[in-house]
Amino acid sequence: MKEPIFDIAQLAHIEMFTPKPEESLKFFTDYLGMEVTQREGQSVYLRAYQDTYHHTLKLTENKEAGLGHVAWRTTSKQALDRRVKVLEASGYGQQWIEGDFGHGQAYRFLDPDGHQMELLWDVDYYEAPADMRTKLMNQPQKRPLKGVPVTRLDHINLMVQDVTPNRKFMEDNLGFRTRENIVLNDGTEAGAWTSVSPLVHEVAFMKDQTGSKGRLHHICYCLQTRQHLMDAAEIFTDYGITIEAGPSKHGISQAFFMYVFEPGGNRVELFSDGYLILDPSHKTVTWSEQDLEKGIIWWGGSLPGEYFLYGTPVIK
Amino acid sequence: MKEPIFDIAQLAHIEMFTPKPEESLKFFTDYLGMEVTQREGQSVYLRAYQDTYHHTLKLTENKEAGLGHVAWRTTSKQALDRRVKVLEASGYGQQWIEGDFGHGQAYRFLDPDGHQMELLWDVDYYEAPADMRTKLMNQPQKRPLKGVPVTRLDHINLMVQDVTPNRKFMEDNLGFRTRENIVLNDGTEAGAWTSVSPLVHEVAFMKDQTGSKGRLHHICYCLQTRQHLMDAAEIFTDYGITIEAGPSKHGISQAFFMYVFEPGGNRVELFSDGYLILDPSHKTVTWSEQDLEKGIIWWGGSLPGEYFLYGTPVIK
Amino acid sequence: MKEPIFDIAQLAHIEMFTPKPEESLKFFTDYLGMEVTQREGQSVYLRAYQDTYHHTLKLTENKEAGLGHVAWRTTSKQALDRRVKVLEASGYGQQWIEGDFGHGQAYRFLDPDGHQMELLWDVDYYEAPADMRTKLMNQPQKRPLKGVPVTRLDHINLMVQDVTPNRKFMEDNLGFRTRENIVLNDGTEAGAWTSVSPLVHEVAFMKDQTGSKGRLHHICYCLQTRQHLMDAAEIFTDYGITIEAGPSKHGISQAFFMYVFEPGGNRVELFSDGYLILDPSHKTVTWSEQDLEKGIIWWGGSLPGEYFLYGTPVIK
Amino acid sequence: MKEPIFDIAQLAHIEMFTPKPEESLKFFTDYLGMEVTQREGQSVYLRAYQDTYHHTLKLTENKEAGLGHVAWRTTSKQALDRRVKVLEASGYGQQWIEGDFGHGQAYRFLDPDGHQMELLWDVDYYEAPADMRTKLMNQPQKRPLKGVPVTRLDHINLMVQDVTPNRKFMEDNLGFRTRENIVLNDGTEAGAWTSVSPLVHEVAFMKDQTGSKGRLHHICYCLQTRQHLMDAAEIFTDYGITIEAGPSKHGISQAFFMYVFEPGGNRVELFSDGYLILDPSHKTVTWSEQDLEKGIIWWGGSLPGEYFLYGTPVIK
Repeated sequence: MKEPIFDIAQLAHIEMFTPKPEESLKFFTDYLGMEVTQREGQSVYLRAYQDTYHHTLKLTENKEAGLGHVAWRTTSKQALDRRVKVLEASGYGQQWIEGDFGHGQAYRFLDPDGHQMELLWDVDYYEAPADMRTKLMNQPQKRPLKGVPVTRLDHINLMVQDVTPNRKFMEDNLGFRTRENIVLNDGTEAGAWTSVSPLVHEVAFMKDQTGSKGRLHHICYCLQTRQHLMDAAEIFTDYGITIEAGPSKHGISQAFFMYVFEPGGNRVELFSDGYLILDPSHKTVTWSEQDLEKGIIWWGGSLPGEYFLYGTPVIK
Repeated sequence: MKEPIFDIAQLAHIEMFTPKPEESLKFFTDYLGMEVTQREGQSVYLRAYQDTYHHTLKLTENKEAGLGHVAWRTTSKQALDRRVKVLEASGYGQQWIEGDFGHGQAYRFLDPDGHQMELLWDVDYYEAPADMRTKLMNQPQKRPLKGVPVTRLDHINLMVQDVTPNRKFMEDNLGFRTRENIVLNDGTEAGAWTSVSPLVHEVAFMKDQTGSKGRLHHICYCLQTRQHLMDAAEIFTDYGITIEAGPSKHGISQAFFMYVFEPGGNRVELFSDGYLILDPSHKTVTWSEQDLEKGIIWWGGSLPGEYFLYGTPVIK
Repeated sequence: MKEPIFDIAQLAHIEMFTPKPEESLKFFTDYLGMEVTQREGQSVYLRAYQDTYHHTLKLTENKEAGLGHVAWRTTSKQALDRRVKVLEASGYGQQWIEGDFGHGQAYRFLDPDGHQMELLWDVDYYEAPADMRTKLMNQPQKRPLKGVPVTRLDHINLMVQDVTPNRKFMEDNLGFRTRENIVLNDGTEAGAWTSVSPLVHEVAFMKDQTGSKGRLHHICYCLQTRQHLMDAAEIFTDYGITIEAGPSKHGISQAFFMYVFEPGGNRVELFSDGYLILDPSHKTVTWSEQDLEKGIIWWGGSLPGEYFLYGTPVIK
Repeated sequence: MKEPIFDIAQLAHIEMFTPKPEESLKFFTDYLGMEVTQREGQSVYLRAYQDTYHHTLKLTENKEAGLGHVAWRTTSKQALDRRVKVLEASGYGQQWIEGDFGHGQAYRFLDPDGHQMELLWDVDYYEAPADMRTKLMNQPQKRPLKGVPVTRLDHINLMVQDVTPNRKFMEDNLGFRTRENIVLNDGTEAGAWTSVSPLVHEVAFMKDQTGSKGRLHHICYCLQTRQHLMDAAEIFTDYGITIEAGPSKHGISQAFFMYVFEPGGNRVELFSDGYLILDPSHKTVTWSEQDLEKGIIWWGGSLPGEYFLYGTPVIK
């Protein structure tokens, strides 16, 4: 038996573009309680209150909405070096960049569909200002008093032309494991949920039914409980944020989910529940067409057709 | 920088002894919704409804309550072999045993305090009977209809004469990482929470204030939400199970907890919340005496003095 | 200003018919934790664990599903006599009956649409058997250990050919107050929620879009929390009970709701949330067509078309 | 059988004094999401987001903390007149006052222990400003974005030298019904929970163990769920508000409770759960000394001794 690879630790941050920077910022701060840790040029850097690093979201003004890059943190400096060698050999590697606010050198690469990614090791930790320091020493700051505060960045969902080469790329080069997938009757892999940790996914790939390449389906932040997700639903309904679907329960990933559009036009998921995969010999759970209905919605309201068609592009 | 070891995957099962086998069994099945998967001699084998293996609890009749053994599953067959070599070299290794219901060969060893442990790789998966198979394909069975069903085994807490050698033993030989600990003003380490996964702990060591060696403080099963934990509190109060403390919130580990005594006399924790440590360079969070009060109880009712004194012994 | 009438206290019980008595009984007992307090002929009498009287549901075998009668308890013996006089004068009164298990003499009448109702004062209180007596002295019994136990009967929803005469009948003769209603652009009253207590409704009238008279839309039992309602959704999904809609949030009544079909074919609502109307000069909240979408679904999944068409008849 | 009196509808508002007006205001607005509707002299007028009138709390600066007055709204203008006659005859009546912001003429009286109360009928309704108007038409405003917003005023708890005369005063003159009480072995009534609605209490009387007369034990606002109460516990712990007891569950009233001290020194309860008394022939549930422990705490952490000793005075 081949041993698993443990070189990637976690999803570190995401860059997203918005044509409505003020409204998007208000969405993440006033409704979801996130904090701005830096402003530079057309970008603001944001984090959820249990996020331990400088930021998990870089929000950059742009004439259209879309995805910038996705950053992964390795489990060590050595792991970073190992993975860069593998990426260079894969043909998908690009180059080292000098870093950004909140982290040092990062190695840039593309997935087969063209989503911009990077690997990094050196990070800056968030230091709360004096009035936000908490006696809860395992948490970086006090609980925010604004909105329904999200706890941490959870995952990203990428639309792809073909699922299989993308999830295989993550498996072969970075040690991701495919926890669940959808295989249609004609053999097409319509979705794959892959992770490097006991989380069901840090990145999912979803077949783009428009045939496009390289789009963003959604980014996802966690809430502590279902109740908070429903509190967010009340706030969104009251304050005019469009809820696309949910609160409802996916079978796949066991997520209690809600999808909304932040004012810039990117889809954002809020999430609680899920399950942890601690079993080291866990086998991919494959949902066939006949089981798929329950996989998509275990209980609760359904997904609209648009869910499978709408995405925002990679902005280079 | 030394790289982390990823050879241990998870807490696999625990053996516990009870002088009141019928009442103890009723506690785990009627109130906590667990299922019996095997009966053999004086033992019953039990699992929670999201536990994927044959069992996570072996409950054995005995004239006194106490702990049998604690089993850890490795991340691969090779990892098992590596760790056995290390344990043999450590002087704490014992011998291979032929296995038990639900798993194959296991390597037995003791921690410095004398708690019986074992490492294993081969396991049997639980197969639900036809009427309990669920269309939720990432879950081994339907949700039980009895009591307030626990979801999965979470961790064990061991009382020890000295915390430091025990947690170092787990670190050095098995790759555990100390996520949080308590260091008193005189330098004594009074508690340590160690894990091999993003969970805050699979095993905690707590200084035994009676000076005894090798006792069990508690085993812990998860519930899906705080509400379920409070539902369990209602059932325990109504049906005469003694709640020692909680529902309340620990600062350390961020557990929303309740401690009860199963009828045999062993302490059992029920747990929700916690937090995940995905940061690969996470540093041990140390609680000093001045911060400790908030560490023990972040909010909610306090712990009685007995909590720090009562334990059940290792039964050999 | 005319003073309010306080002669009706509450919805006391409902009789429902089922062609599948065993499956229906299993639905109410195994999944919803209700208790059988009497069996007589083709009927079983059931109560939720916080219901204080002998029963709140009489379930009677019949070749088709449907509604038997709806019983209201008055606020005093004198109030009963006053209301009977009014009903006799209204032309809708019928006759006194000798009572049934759990209550004494009752006065039978019809609403304008032909739903069978009765008023009563004398009731028998539930006495828990010794092993189910609780130290929670303001509650009639221990919390059940089966399924997701409902707490109490909440309301009934009746389909009617015309809403206005039915809700006016309840107002004029029995002192009900219309808390919310729907008025379409053409002036048709499409729904009315009426109550005698701070609850938003004990009885709602909904325009039957098929034009039928005298049908049952649903009966409704409460759950303590949204979490329990979602627990019930998991059980229903796992064990094959059809969920028609929800868990979702109505704007009207602020109910967090789920509608299911009990195996006999009657629609049953499970409910948490709502709001209390303590304001004595509360004015009917009228939802016009333009506001109605948010009134029907405040957030969460929508209602299927069938929701407005399917009902079960009054069985005489 | 004597018929019940339905002349009092609800607790309308409370006036409380604080020596730290800014900190007290911050407590109610930043942490509990309440809104200021008026400022006049040394007073601010506040309401919770589901409170329908102008205010439910008048907070007035004073050199010491304490209670101003307690206002009750009648069920009609006629009911007000009836009750004023009864109060005049009782010897406890005082005089009509011209009203205050948010209401018209009110009739002032004292309870036997000397707590200042008033009855009123004419009230002003809250009108949300344009940006806070909600499409949830049965609710006066959008859900606030600050803190953990309380939903509505629930009840007041008054410390008294003798419980019996005070609760009898409320019963005989105002139609309150005693829902639960505590009777000690020596016959002393140590507490009484009385209400005019299905709520367990709008006012409780608690024997003052210091022997004082006319003190305030606490005022209480509701939260929608237990989760929100625990969210408030996290905020209070993080931001330095003293939690006296809870979150825990009372047996009496079935309240899920937390008691805190607002910065001025008055005790404030936050509350969810409870139960509704719809039974018109409900009999007082009496807790004797032997049952009292479960009555005070059904499950969860206990109450400190200070809970029974500390109160704030009536300020005249």
